[in-house]
Amino acid sequence: MAPVTIDEIYAARDRIRGVAVVTPLVEGIGLDVPAGNELRLKAENFQRTWSFKLRGAFNAVSSLSADERGRGVITYSSGNHGQAVACAASLLGIRAVIVMPEDAIPIKVAMTRAYNADVVFAGHSSLDRQQRAMELIEEHGYVVIPPFDDRRIIAGQGTAGLEIVEQWPEVEAVVVPVGGGGLLSGVATAVKALRPDVRVIGVEPEGAADARDSWATGTISTWASVDTVADGLRTSRVGELNFATIRELVDDIVTVTDREILTTVGTLVQGAKLVAEPSGAVASAAVLTGKTGLKHARIVALVSGGNIDPDRLRSCLEPDASRQEVLASG
Amino acid sequence: MAPVTIDEIYAARDRIRGVAVVTPLVEGIGLDVPAGNELRLKAENFQRTWSFKLRGAFNAVSSLSADERGRGVITYSSGNHGQAVACAASLLGIRAVIVMPEDAIPIKVAMTRAYNADVVFAGHSSLDRQQRAMELIEEHGYVVIPPFDDRRIIAGQGTAGLEIVEQWPEVEAVVVPVGGGGLLSGVATAVKALRPDVRVIGVEPEGAADARDSWATGTISTWASVDTVADGLRTSRVGELNFATIRELVDDIVTVTDREILTTVGTLVQGAKLVAEPSGAVASAAVLTGKTGLKHARIVALVSGGNIDPDRLRSCLEPDASRQEVLASG
Repeated sequence: MAPVTIDEIYAARDRIRGVAVVTPLVEGIGLDVPAGNELRLKAENFQRTWSFKLRGAFNAVSSLSADERGRGVITYSSGNHGQAVACAASLLGIRAVIVMPEDAIPIKVAMTRAYNADVVFAGHSSLDRQQRAMELIEEHGYVVIPPFDDRRIIAGQGTAGLEIVEQWPEVEAVVVPVGGGGLLSGVATAVKALRPDVRVIGVEPEGAADARDSWATGTISTWASVDTVADGLRTSRVGELNFATIRELVDDIVTVTDREILTTVGTLVQGAKLVAEPSGAVASAAVLTGKTGLKHARIVALVSGGNIDPDRLRSCLEPDASRQEVLASG
Repeated sequence: MAPVTIDEIYAARDRIRGVAVVTPLVEGIGLDVPAGNELRLKAENFQRTWSFKLRGAFNAVSSLSADERGRGVITYSSGNHGQAVACAASLLGIRAVIVMPEDAIPIKVAMTRAYNADVVFAGHSSLDRQQRAMELIEEHGYVVIPPFDDRRIIAGQGTAGLEIVEQWPEVEAVVVPVGGGGLLSGVATAVKALRPDVRVIGVEPEGAADARDSWATGTISTWASVDTVADGLRTSRVGELNFATIRELVDDIVTVTDREILTTVGTLVQGAKLVAEPSGAVASAAVLTGKTGLKHARIVALVSGGNIDPDRLRSCLEPDASRQEVLASG
């Protein structure tokens, strides 16, 4: 399959204009950034649905034909992608069915229903949900909107890369979380098309580092199980199309620990006044711990989302939880 | 004394360029805004020193003559203005003395010292600090940088108003916190000069509503004592110059309760992914409670700062503390 092109990303931008927020680049002016680096944060936690997922979901759903729109859409993500599909469908007046696990947390169910989506419960595993979705597709003819291995999704996520390069032309490195690889491949496509000299680095939690393994070996690695606090990045395998792009364009993939991720959630609150969910903090964590290996570089870390439970956020703000130093911002 | 002009605000903008952050207007897309209003947040919590005070302080300090710079600057605010003066002086290589109360919280002392300012402790009251500052001025010839009743300060704060109008030309109302009135008078001057049709509304805590009284009666009212959780707005009297402008240009001043302020701190975290201090949340609180009286208007609420203690922030996120509904953002 041919890689996603910059033209597909420009087309996605036209489709999502006025719906997706052009999120600001926040200057992380109070953060203690090591190795002489300068850091700005692409604040996708301010995105509609509070995560970048809306970009890809809206691009995909709005690309459907009139016939497909009439059939309705379905997806089997209980997380940010599910909410993004529900939101996109609602905005376009299309029926959406979101398959969620039986033990889905009530707030996620309520938010999905707030977008007028139908929630269907199925088992506990990702496989249970996919299976139920396939049955429903067979029965009702719904169109599936997959979470990452889809060129419309990749092109939509890539619009964040366009914005980064335009908002800070002096940028020298872009650091992005990796789950299924839709965001990383989209952003890499946009950034490298416009500025081949800018380094693009992926960041994964140590407990779900299949993309790092794939990138290092050159063939897609599947992890039998993943374990990380970053619930948006609990993917055991990157998409095929995503990987082809990542292998071609991405300069490095590094990992961070759960402890570093949670510390960074607290650091972003105190030092940047931003609320990030754990998955949203991994790129910043890699920069702040020096794990990117970058020195004296102008870096954008993508804060991918802000959907954090208040209890979790409170725990990240406890004195013992975060030993980070918040320096004065002069 | 002649009011501050738009030209003084443009001159301030030239002086603070490259030092003060041009803070983004954040779309409060997940907030439940009543009365058909549309709300965006001017995020001065992302400002250097994490509050708008840097705008005025840097404008004032950088306006000093070479002789004045050589003498050093002093101020007697233990809060955001003190840190802003310390930061501005540090950036300009000028000595700064900040008079703080003997019981100042250690983190504020540490942050002020991180800007290389000298901290002098004096008693517990604002009067104690002013008195000590006067003695030090007499002894050492320091130049005082007052917190609000000063045309360079007003002009500096007014730059936030310029940015609001440029960032969202369709804006119809700007809602701003009031303490001593420097921010409100500066923003009102900028906004009304460029867009006389835009409403400018001040917001005060109920427990320190001297500016509301002054505005209502047409003469400056002094409160014998003030009591509010919004520590940046514990001012018992607005400045003379500030009041002349407020009386002339401001359309209304409304109040919010401490409970509404703290609820809004939690709402901004959950619904806008922004960290505001209590003083920083008052304008948003007035919009979200409907107290501005605005209907079907495009509103900017100025989030004036983000310097909140982690313990306080944690308590604002407790389930009982905030009963606000965070609605889905579609």
